[in-house]
Amino acid sequence: MGNRVAKITPNRTPKAEPIADIALIGLAVMGQNLILNMADHGYTVCAYNRTTTKVDDFLANEAKGKSIVGAHSLEEMVAKLKRPRRVVLLVKAGSAVDSFINQLTPLLEKGDIIIDGGNSEYTDTQRRCKELREKGLLFVGSGVSGGEEGARFGPSLMPGGHQEAWPHIKDIFQSIAAKVENEPCCDWVGNDGAGHFVKMVHNGIEYGDMQLICEAYHLMKDALSLSHKEMGDIFDEWNKGELDSFLIEITKDIMKYQDENGKALVEQILDSAGQKGTGKWTAISALDFGVPVTLIGESVFARCLSSLKQERVQASKLLDGPSKTKYEGDKKAFIEDIRKALYASKIVSYAQGFMLLREAASKFDWKLNYGGIALMWRGGCIIRSVFLGNIKNAFDKNPSLNNLLVDDFFRSEMSKCQASWRRVVANAVQLGIPTPCFSTALAFFDGYRSAVLPANLIQAQRDYFGAHTYELLNEPGKYVHTNWTGRGGNVSSSSYNA
Amino acid sequence: MGNRVAKITPNRTPKAEPIADIALIGLAVMGQNLILNMADHGYTVCAYNRTTTKVDDFLANEAKGKSIVGAHSLEEMVAKLKRPRRVVLLVKAGSAVDSFINQLTPLLEKGDIIIDGGNSEYTDTQRRCKELREKGLLFVGSGVSGGEEGARFGPSLMPGGHQEAWPHIKDIFQSIAAKVENEPCCDWVGNDGAGHFVKMVHNGIEYGDMQLICEAYHLMKDALSLSHKEMGDIFDEWNKGELDSFLIEITKDIMKYQDENGKALVEQILDSAGQKGTGKWTAISALDFGVPVTLIGESVFARCLSSLKQERVQASKLLDGPSKTKYEGDKKAFIEDIRKALYASKIVSYAQGFMLLREAASKFDWKLNYGGIALMWRGGCIIRSVFLGNIKNAFDKNPSLNNLLVDDFFRSEMSKCQASWRRVVANAVQLGIPTPCFSTALAFFDGYRSAVLPANLIQAQRDYFGAHTYELLNEPGKYVHTNWTGRGGNVSSSSYNA
Repeated sequence: MGNRVAKITPNRTPKAEPIADIALIGLAVMGQNLILNMADHGYTVCAYNRTTTKVDDFLANEAKGKSIVGAHSLEEMVAKLKRPRRVVLLVKAGSAVDSFINQLTPLLEKGDIIIDGGNSEYTDTQRRCKELREKGLLFVGSGVSGGEEGARFGPSLMPGGHQEAWPHIKDIFQSIAAKVENEPCCDWVGNDGAGHFVKMVHNGIEYGDMQLICEAYHLMKDALSLSHKEMGDIFDEWNKGELDSFLIEITKDIMKYQDENGKALVEQILDSAGQKGTGKWTAISALDFGVPVTLIGESVFARCLSSLKQERVQASKLLDGPSKTKYEGDKKAFIEDIRKALYASKIVSYAQGFMLLREAASKFDWKLNYGGIALMWRGGCIIRSVFLGNIKNAFDKNPSLNNLLVDDFFRSEMSKCQASWRRVVANAVQLGIPTPCFSTALAFFDGYRSAVLPANLIQAQRDYFGAHTYELLNEPGKYVHTNWTGRGGNVSSSSYNA
Repeated sequence: MGNRVAKITPNRTPKAEPIADIALIGLAVMGQNLILNMADHGYTVCAYNRTTTKVDDFLANEAKGKSIVGAHSLEEMVAKLKRPRRVVLLVKAGSAVDSFINQLTPLLEKGDIIIDGGNSEYTDTQRRCKELREKGLLFVGSGVSGGEEGARFGPSLMPGGHQEAWPHIKDIFQSIAAKVENEPCCDWVGNDGAGHFVKMVHNGIEYGDMQLICEAYHLMKDALSLSHKEMGDIFDEWNKGELDSFLIEITKDIMKYQDENGKALVEQILDSAGQKGTGKWTAISALDFGVPVTLIGESVFARCLSSLKQERVQASKLLDGPSKTKYEGDKKAFIEDIRKALYASKIVSYAQGFMLLREAASKFDWKLNYGGIALMWRGGCIIRSVFLGNIKNAFDKNPSLNNLLVDDFFRSEMSKCQASWRRVVANAVQLGIPTPCFSTALAFFDGYRSAVLPANLIQAQRDYFGAHTYELLNEPGKYVHTNWTGRGGNVSSSSYNA
């Protein structure tokens, strides 16, 4: 800065052959691993980082001997790209993304493609799609899941944005993505912010899945007094059936992990979980769109409550619970009940997540392929599971399925699980063990299958105190106001004397 | 517009004596009623409305013979005001408020006061405080609750903003506010957006209270098959005890209201409740600030679910519930259990609401008077109740009380209620009747009194798949990463094969 000579002697764009298939900006571990993954699949990748020593380090080490070239300026990077140019950003969400877009825009030409692979808010992606459309560039916002390991050997990729870009990136994306039965966990999601929205919901569902496992663990540890070895074996067993998933598998490993004194390491970890970002965003979107995604909401709040450790410790000395806190029935049967409660709750959580996707699709006019989304989550990411295959099947059978719960397969699963599920929640409530997500899932299930809910009373109350009027059950569209007290006046009154 | 002569012959400010104590802009029913209320208490009020025929109508009718004057322009209105000038805005929240502020600013002088009595978002009030501070004017954002009836005969008022304004509006505000045992339901809340924030939480709590009553009604109607006459009598009875409140009272009236055929009118109302605005804002703020306000969250989601009427009707034909749906024990005892479940859940809801206030106070450096807030809600508004007197007492005893649940009075109430509460939730779960707010309140109570929650497993999982590190229980501040699989590498891996 301030060196005005530079303005007189402009940097000459280095002569470079357009040899690279794609460029990637941002050489943190995720970025490096994605580059290595692309190189493994035969693509020539140009690596760039603002701090250019990182480029040199990378080329001299991890990238050595692979089809990876470097660039020390954006101009050089762009010059090395075949057309249409494809540039992936893997930088911190927020202003860094906008800054790179602004720097790239004058260097690119109509039809070139910028891909944001960071954890951006979908509303930012919507805005960027609009801005770059006006400039003739193509923009893709892609969810990338699976962490560093996934990036290296097969992430779940959820690209959305300008659909004309898809034919130009499809081969690269699908070749580096995770595979399940030879199917890539990557497909085109939809217009503008759809890819990042789907990634956000993915993360919200991840919050829910983790909390559900915690509730099962809590019951087994406290109500059944199981050892960590026993719990590890149970999760191992569960992982062979309907719950077969990455998170159940790692929970098995965690239960079995002992410290040098032979004690379970997990019990030495502070029971305070942070929450921010995408789990919270999912719950806020649900509220904003008016979709009852209760399980993710409760899982975010459960983390908030967990973080009040000192308050809880204080309160535990002051607030009594029930006298009986151990389950006294058949342990083995109750463990199976817990498994079914977890499974049924998980079905509700995914049903709610897809309800939110459906509402967003309707609001933003996205043509979402729900089966494709299930497949994208089926492998490569934290929530990967066999279960997602069942969801894919449900949407394959009926692409316009209104709700997962009414699909034949899931109906039958719910039917098989619900007696167990009710026993678990009823017992948890009596034993004083909180199961907010098992409970809210069950309340949702019972609400969803209720032709009549008590909200007529809410409407009567609102009409009583605010003359809001109400709609007649048997004359839809007809709104009526009643003077409930019969004491005159257009606006209802009350004798209640505070 | 376009008549350029007006620029050459400017409107002359009408000569007017400064006779009015306060002015009010916006002559919808709420505004008219507030003016009449102020006039009843001896204040001279200047009424203004953008459509000035409304001013004339008002003066010729409702305001006739009272200490109310009108104005046909803002200039005239301002000229009629004693100093410091006090101007109340009761216009639609949003841009209309900003527009009037912009028009008023050049007409007012240093130390004059603008009061926004609308349903503004507290973040707008924060912004306006900042903007008007720079212009030397004082700004107050005041929650006004109690509907049209409250505005006329005694609302609950929650003013916040520039504290220097308070001495100049205190007498007017406190004289027109509702009174409980001669104490006005109005006191200074705190700086900038505090008044509108407290009003927002009030509305969120109102959502929760209404949903809790719905759950009691649902259980009495469906599990106990009570008639509306019986339910009306029960609410009447409840209204004589700890639940004594406006909402219980009107529910009694609603239960007893019959149509011309002698049938309960409430059953003819569509069971679909809308949700938007402040209930939703409260839940979103809770998520944003990381405070587990689960009951309001669930009550908003319960309305969302209720609005999916067609889907529910369809699902009710496809999804089975438990075979037993009627409570078979002692009805009278179960009714008392329901009463206690409602009461305990309500205590949790208010405890959560005050947790949110506490967090906002800490975030924005507001000095909130929690006992004063309870008193403001004690009368005049929709959630007015005897119960709020107990909350006031708790904060009077200990102004820095961390949580209502650990106050001696409420501890004892929870202790008396909890066996009943657990029976109600356990039975609802077994009978297939959704009680999302009774349930979430109980889960929160059990979580809050847990010295140890299972979030240690969440932290282990996050460390496993993302190397996020975790904090040691016995060494606070020490963060550790474990290679959980022992399979090498800095980043944990897994053999899970999707």
